[in-house]
Amino acid sequence: MNAYVAPLVRSTAVPAQSCIETFVKAQDFEHPTLVMDRSLVVAQFQALRQGLAGADIHYAVKANPAPEIIAALVAQGAHFDAASRGEIELCLAQGARPDQISFGNTIKRVRDIAFAHGRGVTLFAADASEEIEKIAQHAPGAEVYLRVLVGETGADWPLSRKFGADGAMIPALARQAAELGLRPVGLSFHVGSQTRDPKMWIETLDHMDRVWQQLRGLGFGVDLINIGGGFPAFHGEEILPAQIYAAQVMDMVKARFHGARRVIAESGRGMVAHAGMISAEVVLVSRKSEDDPLRWVYLDIGKFSGLAETMDEAIRYQFVTEKDHQAHEPCVLAGPSCDSADVLYEKHPVPLPVGLCAGDRVLIRNCGAYTSSYASVGFNGFPPLDVIVL
Amino acid sequence: MNAYVAPLVRSTAVPAQSCIETFVKAQDFEHPTLVMDRSLVVAQFQALRQGLAGADIHYAVKANPAPEIIAALVAQGAHFDAASRGEIELCLAQGARPDQISFGNTIKRVRDIAFAHGRGVTLFAADASEEIEKIAQHAPGAEVYLRVLVGETGADWPLSRKFGADGAMIPALARQAAELGLRPVGLSFHVGSQTRDPKMWIETLDHMDRVWQQLRGLGFGVDLINIGGGFPAFHGEEILPAQIYAAQVMDMVKARFHGARRVIAESGRGMVAHAGMISAEVVLVSRKSEDDPLRWVYLDIGKFSGLAETMDEAIRYQFVTEKDHQAHEPCVLAGPSCDSADVLYEKHPVPLPVGLCAGDRVLIRNCGAYTSSYASVGFNGFPPLDVIVL
Repeated sequence: MNAYVAPLVRSTAVPAQSCIETFVKAQDFEHPTLVMDRSLVVAQFQALRQGLAGADIHYAVKANPAPEIIAALVAQGAHFDAASRGEIELCLAQGARPDQISFGNTIKRVRDIAFAHGRGVTLFAADASEEIEKIAQHAPGAEVYLRVLVGETGADWPLSRKFGADGAMIPALARQAAELGLRPVGLSFHVGSQTRDPKMWIETLDHMDRVWQQLRGLGFGVDLINIGGGFPAFHGEEILPAQIYAAQVMDMVKARFHGARRVIAESGRGMVAHAGMISAEVVLVSRKSEDDPLRWVYLDIGKFSGLAETMDEAIRYQFVTEKDHQAHEPCVLAGPSCDSADVLYEKHPVPLPVGLCAGDRVLIRNCGAYTSSYASVGFNGFPPLDVIVL
Repeated sequence: MNAYVAPLVRSTAVPAQSCIETFVKAQDFEHPTLVMDRSLVVAQFQALRQGLAGADIHYAVKANPAPEIIAALVAQGAHFDAASRGEIELCLAQGARPDQISFGNTIKRVRDIAFAHGRGVTLFAADASEEIEKIAQHAPGAEVYLRVLVGETGADWPLSRKFGADGAMIPALARQAAELGLRPVGLSFHVGSQTRDPKMWIETLDHMDRVWQQLRGLGFGVDLINIGGGFPAFHGEEILPAQIYAAQVMDMVKARFHGARRVIAESGRGMVAHAGMISAEVVLVSRKSEDDPLRWVYLDIGKFSGLAETMDEAIRYQFVTEKDHQAHEPCVLAGPSCDSADVLYEKHPVPLPVGLCAGDRVLIRNCGAYTSSYASVGFNGFPPLDVIVL
């Protein structure tokens, strides 16, 4: 072993996955395949609903847009956070009502705003003056919530400055919206994905509350606070049960935001990550030199066919093999494409069985979010990730 | 202007693109669209063939797998470097003969090796003992070239250690191949993409020549040297004309590799990048705070819908707008998705016209390579990049 050894994270079994795991192990797949269990999604929705008592839970469709998942959530009374016209169409096709859909992308084409308006969507996100003009023109009278740019919170996957406007700009944006006939109903923010400790929310919530109070003090009747997502999925580091985590966050929200009658939570990863497992295959095991302390293990799935979130090794998946009873040694893990960037874990190698070889099955746990939808159309001639929903 | 200002690189016109540019400007596109001009690909192939006199040019299909491009290159007598069964099928369907196709991925599924062998492909890449076993078993008697791991060369997009075996391992791999009934015919390497100066090849070629001589000294009758790709495309930094660049590299190759009767060059980016232009659209222009020195410009195309190579800002595209006569100021450029990682250029902002606004057309030059094939199946509900081949 050497200095590269990552903490052993494979050992934490997730009992809820046993049903998918049984199914996956009984199948042969020609290509890498994501298997989703919709009953796990429904159970998670119910847990979040209990924890977030009183909030509308908007499922972040981008996390996993499988129609069966959307339909199952529609049946539960979920709301939906759509990033595009395509996602709005998907939700409507699965039975969602327009008033259950928010157009949550702050970057919208005018023809998509007009489309959403035409289909009855009334709630839009904005973080810029030009966006407000576009919404006012193409969705007159709509409700708008303003996204605030917040700082680093310690999340595993911190957000860039891409979304949100500085808090100091918010009153001017609200004023502009009102002047253009829109209804500036509230605020939104995002603490960052994989915010494992509810305490990480405090600083952001305090900051948001100050912006909120300022708006109310200026006479804006804001009554909607959208707390975004950030609820974590299990990726090797211990996390709280969803309901408890949600309740702790909700308590902190309720202690702030005086006058808020509507709370929205957008859950994506936290709703579906645990409900999916990918079946993949080892294609090659090699060493780069005679004295290489590390083996290289190449899978038939990589960064461009479903595991994009290994970017910068931020999300660490858990791997299950049929040889897990063997001793483990650290491996560099890479995808099958002829692309040198298609390396999954190199800085922090993954401990894998010493006897692993080409043809062995590898199951990847908790990967129901941000996998199938990120897959490329066919980079290197490899087909996109297959999806089966149980 | 401030310290963030990137060097102004928009000004270098590429006259050969004027034909695509004329076409693109005359069209309206509903979605971001890549327009390829196959005559530019053919002209580039001919320039490379002249410069690389005597070499077989294997087009790296992954760079742009548009069937029309493959067919045009088949008609020119090109060879093909395929990364997968899918790419082999594509080339065969467009009329390539099996002996014009090399299975150049060092990471191959056994059923894909068997497929290639069954269709008459006889030339395979390998860099590991297990891969040689797989090829020997599923493509008995095949020709194999061994990929050597080479160091950094100063390329714009340096390669990781993903591909190749240390030079010291090569004799043992060649011996194993021969013992298993394969024909170890030669060596391959890759200097890294966007190797702008032919002099960057010298150190690698010298290293490769030592491995080559050692093999010949041991009695292996290697006669094939595959010099990979690395030929640059114009991305803002001046490059040599393709024919001159190729001739300089070929001179250096011929001065080495005694006994080489076959030279293979794999060109992907260098063959097609200049032949493609993307038509995109500004979706939003904003500032994050009142005193933000930078505007944020959001396009309808991003990292997950075609511009994946902006990863780490390695490849810098050139942008053309209808407002290029205006003064320019540095902008952060980002894609349309709700993904905070979908930022194209932030560390090194892009100078863009001060009057740029939502709805404005943005043309992206020299992006015929590694765009359409990298696009996701529909991340955030955005469709993959449309492709039109002229």
